[in-house]
Amino acid sequence: MKLSELAESLSGTFHGDAGIEVTGISGLDDAREGDLSFVLDEKHMKKAAESAASCLLVKKHDPSVAKAQIVVDDPQAAFVGLLGKMRPRPFWPSGISPMAYVDPQAELGEGVSVMPFAYISKDARVGAGSVICPGVFIGEGSSIGEGSLLYPNVSVMDGCTIGKRAIIHAGVVIGSDGFGFIQRKGQNVKVPQVGSVEIGDDVEIGANACIDRATTDATRIASGTKIDNLVQVAHNVQIGEGSILAAFSGIAGSSKLGKRTVMAAMSGVGDHVKLTDGVTLTAMAATTSDIDEPGYYSGFPIMPMRDWLKTMAALRKLPELAKRVGELEKRLADNDTRGDGK
Amino acid sequence: MKLSELAESLSGTFHGDAGIEVTGISGLDDAREGDLSFVLDEKHMKKAAESAASCLLVKKHDPSVAKAQIVVDDPQAAFVGLLGKMRPRPFWPSGISPMAYVDPQAELGEGVSVMPFAYISKDARVGAGSVICPGVFIGEGSSIGEGSLLYPNVSVMDGCTIGKRAIIHAGVVIGSDGFGFIQRKGQNVKVPQVGSVEIGDDVEIGANACIDRATTDATRIASGTKIDNLVQVAHNVQIGEGSILAAFSGIAGSSKLGKRTVMAAMSGVGDHVKLTDGVTLTAMAATTSDIDEPGYYSGFPIMPMRDWLKTMAALRKLPELAKRVGELEKRLADNDTRGDGK
Amino acid sequence: MKLSELAESLSGTFHGDAGIEVTGISGLDDAREGDLSFVLDEKHMKKAAESAASCLLVKKHDPSVAKAQIVVDDPQAAFVGLLGKMRPRPFWPSGISPMAYVDPQAELGEGVSVMPFAYISKDARVGAGSVICPGVFIGEGSSIGEGSLLYPNVSVMDGCTIGKRAIIHAGVVIGSDGFGFIQRKGQNVKVPQVGSVEIGDDVEIGANACIDRATTDATRIASGTKIDNLVQVAHNVQIGEGSILAAFSGIAGSSKLGKRTVMAAMSGVGDHVKLTDGVTLTAMAATTSDIDEPGYYSGFPIMPMRDWLKTMAALRKLPELAKRVGELEKRLADNDTRGDGK
Repeated sequence: MKLSELAESLSGTFHGDAGIEVTGISGLDDAREGDLSFVLDEKHMKKAAESAASCLLVKKHDPSVAKAQIVVDDPQAAFVGLLGKMRPRPFWPSGISPMAYVDPQAELGEGVSVMPFAYISKDARVGAGSVICPGVFIGEGSSIGEGSLLYPNVSVMDGCTIGKRAIIHAGVVIGSDGFGFIQRKGQNVKVPQVGSVEIGDDVEIGANACIDRATTDATRIASGTKIDNLVQVAHNVQIGEGSILAAFSGIAGSSKLGKRTVMAAMSGVGDHVKLTDGVTLTAMAATTSDIDEPGYYSGFPIMPMRDWLKTMAALRKLPELAKRVGELEKRLADNDTRGDGK
Repeated sequence: MKLSELAESLSGTFHGDAGIEVTGISGLDDAREGDLSFVLDEKHMKKAAESAASCLLVKKHDPSVAKAQIVVDDPQAAFVGLLGKMRPRPFWPSGISPMAYVDPQAELGEGVSVMPFAYISKDARVGAGSVICPGVFIGEGSSIGEGSLLYPNVSVMDGCTIGKRAIIHAGVVIGSDGFGFIQRKGQNVKVPQVGSVEIGDDVEIGANACIDRATTDATRIASGTKIDNLVQVAHNVQIGEGSILAAFSGIAGSSKLGKRTVMAAMSGVGDHVKLTDGVTLTAMAATTSDIDEPGYYSGFPIMPMRDWLKTMAALRKLPELAKRVGELEKRLADNDTRGDGK
Repeated sequence: MKLSELAESLSGTFHGDAGIEVTGISGLDDAREGDLSFVLDEKHMKKAAESAASCLLVKKHDPSVAKAQIVVDDPQAAFVGLLGKMRPRPFWPSGISPMAYVDPQAELGEGVSVMPFAYISKDARVGAGSVICPGVFIGEGSSIGEGSLLYPNVSVMDGCTIGKRAIIHAGVVIGSDGFGFIQRKGQNVKVPQVGSVEIGDDVEIGANACIDRATTDATRIASGTKIDNLVQVAHNVQIGEGSILAAFSGIAGSSKLGKRTVMAAMSGVGDHVKLTDGVTLTAMAATTSDIDEPGYYSGFPIMPMRDWLKTMAALRKLPELAKRVGELEKRLADNDTRGDGK
């Protein structure tokens, strides 16, 4: 695509030779000649100038950088929009494969694709335009909203509800039994998990993540929440709108996360814990108690991130501190001796 | 169901209007009007009184609480029993689907269900009444005990044994190769894993958990052990009876866990470690050395939980402690100066 | 097999009765009578002597040990070679099953096995002699090298490349979308992931591990790298040759690991981090900053392992240290009082 055409399609203005051919699109780190990339803010302009990219999406033209530039209001959003045009969807409508199993009492919306080896149970519903990939299982009475994409080998157990435009990556399990046992006569007795899972609209769930069904009532994930690979959501957990859960984060039973919760990688929330809106747990942080103030939290036991940074800085000097205390003790003992000996 | 009928079915006595209709069952947290719930002990009575539940299973009648009450010996067990009646089993006997693959040399017990797209290899055996869901793979010579339920997309590799009444949740992998390599001439050379996996009776394994086969001999999980989602059990591990392993817990190669081991979420056991019976690792605890005394252990490096609690309390005050040491040094230096100046 | 024959097959010399029958092979821990085992080095000779093994592979004959011994240059490698003969491969050539789906435009090399319920998309290629197990999905345009083994229920999304002799264990997901979102108007907007995954030769990936596709360009895993179960490799990560990643290790977006990186269990690398060649992260270590020197690193925040060991030793004594500081303060206050009172 020519620079001038690209600028026009983005409603931006361009600086550089209108006829330059943009042949690819990539992040600054892996840009090659011919690529279009974007500059998040002025701090990244130097890195952009040094990259191999031929053309930059920028907020403000920088004449000192000898590259074609397209000025737009929001370079990152424009970049994301262009990416979306490059891979509009990985699966094409394919109808209902005769190699799939669709129960006669399942209900499929218009334009649904069910690929070979997918299994759709009795009373399950799949909304219009959704794609059900090979190896997907949808349990009895479960419901998938319109325009959703279930990647291969996803298992949605019975009685679960997933909203519109869901993206469920390969290997995800939704509606497995919550982990509940009581001890009686030295045995672990299973607590039957008779609840379900309710997932809002525009939720994405990463590969091999697990969302357990509730003991009673429902495990709930509100709309707009994005979950990374290998995340664990236990029974009866409630996750607020627009939350972000990174890989290996885990939430134990019955905890309630507020809106826009962010859990960084390997962070955890204990059972029956309540987080207010806007809480961020940094990597490897874990809390077993409620958090009432929005903000960044770190460590285990949990503390505000700034305290944790101070604590960790002090921890690094702990062996030295112990030595200093030993010296103080020695000096004081010497002083005392001298004092006594006076 | 009417209160009087419910009380009778539980061999309990009731307090309240015999004709009250109980329309549902749920935990105290999510109880609605019409629901039956249970009160674990007297400490929870206040919470129960404030809940929306219409009827409570209690150990002792509390006349100050204005709700119908059914008195039973063990309210929690009674509650669990009622849950079991609500969802007796998620899959119904369905026979052997013509859309499944069952090797002619596989051996299926009476009343086994094999659903579409399941694959049962040569010389595999499935015990009477077991249900094999879509997408399940059972490898050559493997054996599944009676009354077991293998949820969708479970993979049981060759030569593995699973006992009776197993519940294996979706996506579980049993019998994958242990992670063993030796370094030779700068290369990682694979150590073939020729052992197997042996799982006792009444074992439950959570979604997407992984149980590796042994290098030689067998990885063993004793009867009554319950494993949560996304747990890792490495080659040659031995897990004692009635153990509980929560999500993201992991056990490295050849370690031996005693009976009734409890591993809380994100806890770990290093390789070749031996834990005596009755050891509990709290969340995020990890041990690389043997533990000979039953009890609660925390942190990494591991320590008894009470020591860890003290240590963490001290850690929170570490920046302040460092300041105090600095002040001591200053005061001592001042004293010395004054001392010298005398 | 007779001792003399075994020794001959290993080009070793034997000590003991030539006619002894070796009936099995196992590690020292689980050796039974009749078994052959190996002795890693002289330190393990005592353990070997006490084991039930009937015959030992040794580097040097030890006449004080009353067991048959076979002397070879490299006992461990000889042992590994013998294991390989016991379980040469878990799947046999089976041709293309009529119960599989192979797109007419897919390209299969000679002797490829495609088992029932496997799905091979348009323009996908599978190299000669590879085995594709039940429930495997191979996406559009993806390529699997010669002699590879994809265990059941593996999902390889579109446009990914896997080299020769790959071993991909059950439930692995390769090419799921990287976890990328930008926040606009209070919403999480998906960053389309248009890149791919490129995996070299002789790579092994453990059960239920996840390798995300790149935003642009490719996530790359170099040849000879071995990845354990339940590992997370995020978008645009680059992993150097011959690396070893243990269970629950995770690498965040765009990080570059050098050659022969070792990540022990539950260790992590933050995003945009660069590790030089030969870095080992010990269990539960995590780094968010670059590491320029090879060696062992521990803790979070990360530090050289020897510093971490000292720090942890000091941490164990922290409550005591705090007490000592309190006593110093008291003594100094007493001294001052006495001083004032003089």
